Amino acid sequence: MEQRVDVAIIGAGSAGLYTMGQVKRKTDNFVLIDGGELGTTCARVGCMPSKALIQVAEDFHRRTLFKRQGIEGGERLAINGADVLEHVQDLRDIFVDKVLSSTTDHMGDEFIAAHARFLEPDLLQVADLQIRAKRIVIATGSRPLFPDAWKAFGERILTTDEIFELEELPASLAVIGLGVIGLELGQALSRLGVEVTGIDQLENIGQLDDPEVNSAAIRLLGKEMPLWLGHPAAIEEAGDGRLRVTAGEQSVVVERVLVCIGRRPNLDTLDLDKAGIALNSEGLPDYNPNTMQIGNKPVFIAGDVTSERQLLHEAADEGRIAGINAVADSVVAFRRKTPLSITFSDPQIVMLGKRLSELDPDSTLVGSVDFGMLGRALIMGRNKGVLRVYADKATGRLLGACMVAPHAEHLGHLLNWCVEQNLTIQQMVRMPYYHPVIEEALQPVLRDMVHQSGLGSEQYPPDLELL
Amino acid sequence: MEQRVDVAIIGAGSAGLYTMGQVKRKTDNFVLIDGGELGTTCARVGCMPSKALIQVAEDFHRRTLFKRQGIEGGERLAINGADVLEHVQDLRDIFVDKVLSSTTDHMGDEFIAAHARFLEPDLLQVADLQIRAKRIVIATGSRPLFPDAWKAFGERILTTDEIFELEELPASLAVIGLGVIGLELGQALSRLGVEVTGIDQLENIGQLDDPEVNSAAIRLLGKEMPLWLGHPAAIEEAGDGRLRVTAGEQSVVVERVLVCIGRRPNLDTLDLDKAGIALNSEGLPDYNPNTMQIGNKPVFIAGDVTSERQLLHEAADEGRIAGINAVADSVVAFRRKTPLSITFSDPQIVMLGKRLSELDPDSTLVGSVDFGMLGRALIMGRNKGVLRVYADKATGRLLGACMVAPHAEHLGHLLNWCVEQNLTIQQMVRMPYYHPVIEEALQPVLRDMVHQSGLGSEQYPPDLELL
Repeated sequence: MEQRVDVAIIGAGSAGLYTMGQVKRKTDNFVLIDGGELGTTCARVGCMPSKALIQVAEDFHRRTLFKRQGIEGGERLAINGADVLEHVQDLRDIFVDKVLSSTTDHMGDEFIAAHARFLEPDLLQVADLQIRAKRIVIATGSRPLFPDAWKAFGERILTTDEIFELEELPASLAVIGLGVIGLELGQALSRLGVEVTGIDQLENIGQLDDPEVNSAAIRLLGKEMPLWLGHPAAIEEAGDGRLRVTAGEQSVVVERVLVCIGRRPNLDTLDLDKAGIALNSEGLPDYNPNTMQIGNKPVFIAGDVTSERQLLHEAADEGRIAGINAVADSVVAFRRKTPLSITFSDPQIVMLGKRLSELDPDSTLVGSVDFGMLGRALIMGRNKGVLRVYADKATGRLLGACMVAPHAEHLGHLLNWCVEQNLTIQQMVRMPYYHPVIEEALQPVLRDMVHQSGLGSEQYPPDLELL
Repeated sequence: MEQRVDVAIIGAGSAGLYTMGQVKRKTDNFVLIDGGELGTTCARVGCMPSKALIQVAEDFHRRTLFKRQGIEGGERLAINGADVLEHVQDLRDIFVDKVLSSTTDHMGDEFIAAHARFLEPDLLQVADLQIRAKRIVIATGSRPLFPDAWKAFGERILTTDEIFELEELPASLAVIGLGVIGLELGQALSRLGVEVTGIDQLENIGQLDDPEVNSAAIRLLGKEMPLWLGHPAAIEEAGDGRLRVTAGEQSVVVERVLVCIGRRPNLDTLDLDKAGIALNSEGLPDYNPNTMQIGNKPVFIAGDVTSERQLLHEAADEGRIAGINAVADSVVAFRRKTPLSITFSDPQIVMLGKRLSELDPDSTLVGSVDFGMLGRALIMGRNKGVLRVYADKATGRLLGACMVAPHAEHLGHLLNWCVEQNLTIQQMVRMPYYHPVIEEALQPVLRDMVHQSGLGSEQYPPDLELL
């Protein structure tokens, strides 16, 4: 039997659900197909449970300041691992329920709980159904990368798919891969009392390409847990059910290993070749990020499966763009937003706009500030970090920034909106900076940069504007 | 003996020091005069010690979440009041030393530790010196208002001048006046175990004029300490050295009273009449806020003594404008910044741009969001508050905002910069909003407002922009 629909959306994660939101505005004749676990990567195994774990870890970590602050009894605080994990799971369940109850819970036949694969560019096999769709949206997400060789170690090797299911915290753990997720979870678990060793084959952590921020991040995060950089990790049995993890000259015996070496797009069972979709050298289909269309096929792609911008707010944009175009008479192109990336470590790592490695050193002005003497940060016991600001030397236009800094998520938003608006450092230095706040850190950097660039008035302070 | 100088600056607080910074760029022939305690209101008795106290109180208050989070022993945490106060004093001393060591500590005869009063528009009496100045800058600051009748109660009545000098926390305290300072200190002391009663003769707290934010603030802050509103406070002896504070039908017996009913400009001993400076109905000299000049006299004014914008960043601008003009051939006008006000309570109260009461309801669009279901706020255990956004109905231009909200200081900066740039809600809704962050709260409000206003596209989501 062949069912004919206007749109088939493969994947009921964030991107697929945002796609559906736009599709429903134009047609009721669509299907949403997902044979996997529902609830979105973000709510189920990503942003939300990780933030919940980080929040507990950070609250517990504050006790290290208690004595100095006049709060007694901090040394007697203790973590009940099972309770922490239950709390994280409770919050996660709230977020997952919120997603489900506003989407698939109330869907009828237009939701199909099965996997899809292409038979033709506009024909899908979904269980025993064949679905012919005018347009198809691929929003199948991604899954943690996991070397086959390590499968033999069974449940002792974790990814983000498993870690939030634990009922007890392990006594010891190696984190392999110190990108965003590895740093976030590694630091949080370390603060909760797990003996964590962080390992990465690269010399940089958190995807940092600014060497000053990278070395500050390694120094600051390395205070709480050993970071072994520059060597790949190998795992072997260590007896007693434990594992020996070796990297270069160093090795550690641990109960568990958390593998955070990246995510793999869920493309492999789609039979994309039947849709006439070729894969590029990275194993991905080429697509237009402004329309989300694959070539000029009636097929669109959105969300983590693209392997780019694996973030909820980007998946939301991509899903909506794909959804709009899946029901449009002709495909429409949308502007994409200034990239922003946040690692919710402490201090946080934020990158936005252009990366330093993308910029021409000759035409780029770089400003820098350390948080050591920033009043509010000092009061918070968080006066650690560095912020680097990149601007165009000739015009002063803000190009990007990179930081490991207290409350960097907020500084990141402020700066990202400035890049988005093409603001110059001359304009930004004139904005209001309250006192005492973290945002104040920006003003002296910008003042110095304006001075260095010769773009400001010599006569008056750069942050005052003539009426 | 008469000394002749180019500029005399009366007051070595923040405004006076910023004035001096500009004056020094043009002349060495100036004097800085201050007969009071040095170190600035901000560092000594204002922003900095209050934030230090608030930080300890907030860290201690987090223990109320510990059980739910899986952290054990929170109920055994205790405050050592003397240690808390010592910590606050230590931090304060760091900030005061930082000010002094970069300013008056290294000054020679150009700093005069005495009070000044006018003899003529350009002549000052300073101890036994007469100083004739081409230009004079009044930056004498302000002091806490304190009804004469309450002086009889002696040391039991505190203001911000005394509270950071305490060596022990009182067992009980009434805060009279629930503006910014009363709320901040009242809540912090309450969280540190002091039995605090908050009293204000007005029905609004924190200077809030938006009734929805005011009622949310009263509800949220009132959970931690009783707030008695709408009646003036009276104080009388209650025996045992304690005081009875009565407001309307209610009364409480306390050890101490903290009076936060406003600040009074230090103008009264300057003999302004000798300078030919008239005072307006509020007892203040009229001045031009863009030049800081008083009338067309050779006299400028800057900082808290103006009784407006009593904030360090505004004092810095005012001091620099006054300083520039005190050494300029002709007076230059500078643009002033969009007002921003932050009460560092928890949740924080922030107002920026236009107040609701300044806006015409017919031409103003008001958007509103509650923080109850905001994911990140929920994870933080801070999902309480309301944000109201004001925009021009016809154009969508952002006019202002008012909120009691978690991390409102950061939301406040973001929004304030938008007002400063004349952004519209149509532009703002298209900015990047990461997930999960507090900034996300903004996007649905803006989306609704754009929809209500009819200013956005009907065809596409307002937060996507055609390329």
